[in-house]
Amino acid sequence: MVGGGFAGLQATKGLHGADVHVTLVDRNNYHLFQPLSYQVATGALSPAEIAQPLRRIFHDDVNVRVIMGEVTDLALDRHAIVIQPPEAGPEHELPYDSLIVAGGSAYNYFGHDEWRPLALEVKSLESAIEVRARILRAFEAAELEPDPQVRAALLTFVIVGAGPTGVEMAGQIGELARDTLRGDFRAIEPGQGRVLLVETADRVLTAFPASLSEKAAHALRRLGVTPMTDHTVTDVTSGAVELKDGSGAITRVPTRTVIWAAGVTASPLAGMLGHGCGAQVDRAGRVAVEPDLTLPGKPEVIALGDMVVLRDPRGGDPIALPGLAPVAMQEGRYAAKLILDRLAGRPTKPFRYLDKGQLATIGRGEGVADIHGLHLAGPLAWATWLLVHLFYLIGFQNRVIVLIRWAVNFLTRGRGARLITDGVTHRPGSPGR
Amino acid sequence: MVGGGFAGLQATKGLHGADVHVTLVDRNNYHLFQPLSYQVATGALSPAEIAQPLRRIFHDDVNVRVIMGEVTDLALDRHAIVIQPPEAGPEHELPYDSLIVAGGSAYNYFGHDEWRPLALEVKSLESAIEVRARILRAFEAAELEPDPQVRAALLTFVIVGAGPTGVEMAGQIGELARDTLRGDFRAIEPGQGRVLLVETADRVLTAFPASLSEKAAHALRRLGVTPMTDHTVTDVTSGAVELKDGSGAITRVPTRTVIWAAGVTASPLAGMLGHGCGAQVDRAGRVAVEPDLTLPGKPEVIALGDMVVLRDPRGGDPIALPGLAPVAMQEGRYAAKLILDRLAGRPTKPFRYLDKGQLATIGRGEGVADIHGLHLAGPLAWATWLLVHLFYLIGFQNRVIVLIRWAVNFLTRGRGARLITDGVTHRPGSPGR
Repeated sequence: MVGGGFAGLQATKGLHGADVHVTLVDRNNYHLFQPLSYQVATGALSPAEIAQPLRRIFHDDVNVRVIMGEVTDLALDRHAIVIQPPEAGPEHELPYDSLIVAGGSAYNYFGHDEWRPLALEVKSLESAIEVRARILRAFEAAELEPDPQVRAALLTFVIVGAGPTGVEMAGQIGELARDTLRGDFRAIEPGQGRVLLVETADRVLTAFPASLSEKAAHALRRLGVTPMTDHTVTDVTSGAVELKDGSGAITRVPTRTVIWAAGVTASPLAGMLGHGCGAQVDRAGRVAVEPDLTLPGKPEVIALGDMVVLRDPRGGDPIALPGLAPVAMQEGRYAAKLILDRLAGRPTKPFRYLDKGQLATIGRGEGVADIHGLHLAGPLAWATWLLVHLFYLIGFQNRVIVLIRWAVNFLTRGRGARLITDGVTHRPGSPGR
Repeated sequence: MVGGGFAGLQATKGLHGADVHVTLVDRNNYHLFQPLSYQVATGALSPAEIAQPLRRIFHDDVNVRVIMGEVTDLALDRHAIVIQPPEAGPEHELPYDSLIVAGGSAYNYFGHDEWRPLALEVKSLESAIEVRARILRAFEAAELEPDPQVRAALLTFVIVGAGPTGVEMAGQIGELARDTLRGDFRAIEPGQGRVLLVETADRVLTAFPASLSEKAAHALRRLGVTPMTDHTVTDVTSGAVELKDGSGAITRVPTRTVIWAAGVTASPLAGMLGHGCGAQVDRAGRVAVEPDLTLPGKPEVIALGDMVVLRDPRGGDPIALPGLAPVAMQEGRYAAKLILDRLAGRPTKPFRYLDKGQLATIGRGEGVADIHGLHLAGPLAWATWLLVHLFYLIGFQNRVIVLIRWAVNFLTRGRGARLITDGVTHRPGSPGR
């Protein structure tokens, strides 16, 4: 089992108590509740509140072994995977009877890998912590900056991509500037800052019905966010982003903080799988699997989550399910059942996705929901979002603490985890303040 | 006001509402509750639970301005300090009428600055987060390590310095290995690891009475910690520490994790102050101040906290008060009163330290306390420690959350914040798992 995300976690849980040995490999020692990682990036939640050590989750599952390490090779021919352990040391080879790979995805930066360090994403915990430091540091620097043009650039925040993550992130920065930080500074007015949400399509939240997109855009504007639909990013530098609109006109926006939430590329593990069995790999790097999520010609290898597309048994284009946690979780549970059914000699059925709808939150009391054609916007959608996320958050202690944080944040418009930590291990020769 | 530690915070608070303008400069954007930072290093608490944004603390104090920046020069002659802002930019000069400097201290590594990256401390938040990652990663690597000698080195933890921080840290690692991680691994038994507490003196907690030192050493042994008194560190490498005992014999201990908590050196700001006014600077880098905490010949400059020693008005050696939070807080309050008294034309008195006693905790239900000759050990001392620390922890939300964490940790022997986050901003080209 490779990957401790939503898919991997459910697959491993589904094998609980069965007469199989499961080895779960992840390069992190925790399962991250990724739908909330953007809240770390604005200081609303602390990292440990949305991440749970994998070892704790599977503490009581004696048939599960957790290994922290980076997968460097999938040797499908000799039924083994190769792992680089966390400390520099020799690589390990792990043999398998069945292999489940759920490596997830990352953002693709439109092919411009050089933009990656300039425009951080908020999907991984480490990047979210760094985004938090960058946003807060920009306000701190602005407070001291005498040049009004530089100050305006410091107070301009550009979010690329108006999917749920981009929309939620933009709304959070809007709230941070307008509510949380209000009155905290003496020279600047944080609420005067600009938050630009750049989207290539003609509306935000394209996966939702158009009426909800409109309501979301309206809610964003109320939080001081400017949705810039029909705009594409053509360049990112350390001091500005360059945008092109539908007419081809170029705008240069001076900014020190760019956050990336657009375009998805599958884990390199998908490419390795495709290479290992000759399966098709699409432009987003996803490997095409059979309707039962196995690799073509390799029924002992199952691939799940954001990194796969499903072969259409009727010969059409491969089907890409949305990159949502419920999809990953359902696929994980299906994979566990597939393995157990096979061991028991039971017949197996192809995977079927049960669409539970989708949710997004924009700000305090604002959300949109699309559940089986039921379209909600406003406080009810927001409350649904809140309950669903609390329910799926792992760990009783975390649920209680997140609930307290959210309650206090809601009442005080505060954010408890507004820390600038550099990740600089130590600063030589500067012990004091 | 330079420094947002305990001294700086109290001095700034003491000027609340007065007819003065206060500018508080710190290189971090938060006040750190340093006595608990070691709990971050073992995953018992999250960083945001013991750190509070300075801007939030002084949000309502309209006469207080908070600036995040590094002080690069103290120009005492022209009554100004020079600040490097958080983003690369021109330095700023801030003029002052009165200057309070509370830059704190760091560990001195016995003059071996090259040991610093190998033997991290747990005083600063960033270093504590990195220590947490190193400790947990050592267990993860041990789980995969086939060579028994390397595995033993990975499971050996050396703490240098048996003051309160070293003792508490050693006890926490002992508990982490024996209780929290028990049953989490399949190949190793974390409780089989070794925790060595190295101390040059002949007992742990030398600032406490000998009877309490003995009780603390006993409690440490019960947690699997080996106190190595009468031992001095003579070398630190990436794979081992070298110790010398009282007889001069050298022992080489293979280990991958060394934590430093010995020897104190004042902030470089103390040296700048001494240089600026000709005041004496001692071997630990501390500047000698007058009995009213002002610089000799510069009554408008006040220095506080770990970075000063007090001139003895009777001509004896300068008096070094212990490096404890209560000392810093009392000095901070005194400094604010001194400034207000002067402005009001009231006579001023020299600073007097009111000794409130000292506390240390060793593990779950174990502590020592020395309060005005009252010597406590065991659960009562531990409960006192717990209440005092909760009481002084800033922020209502943090108090509630820390109380919940501690309660859950106590009941389950768990640790909620066991995350390995690298502080690596991004890993180019490795989006997946």
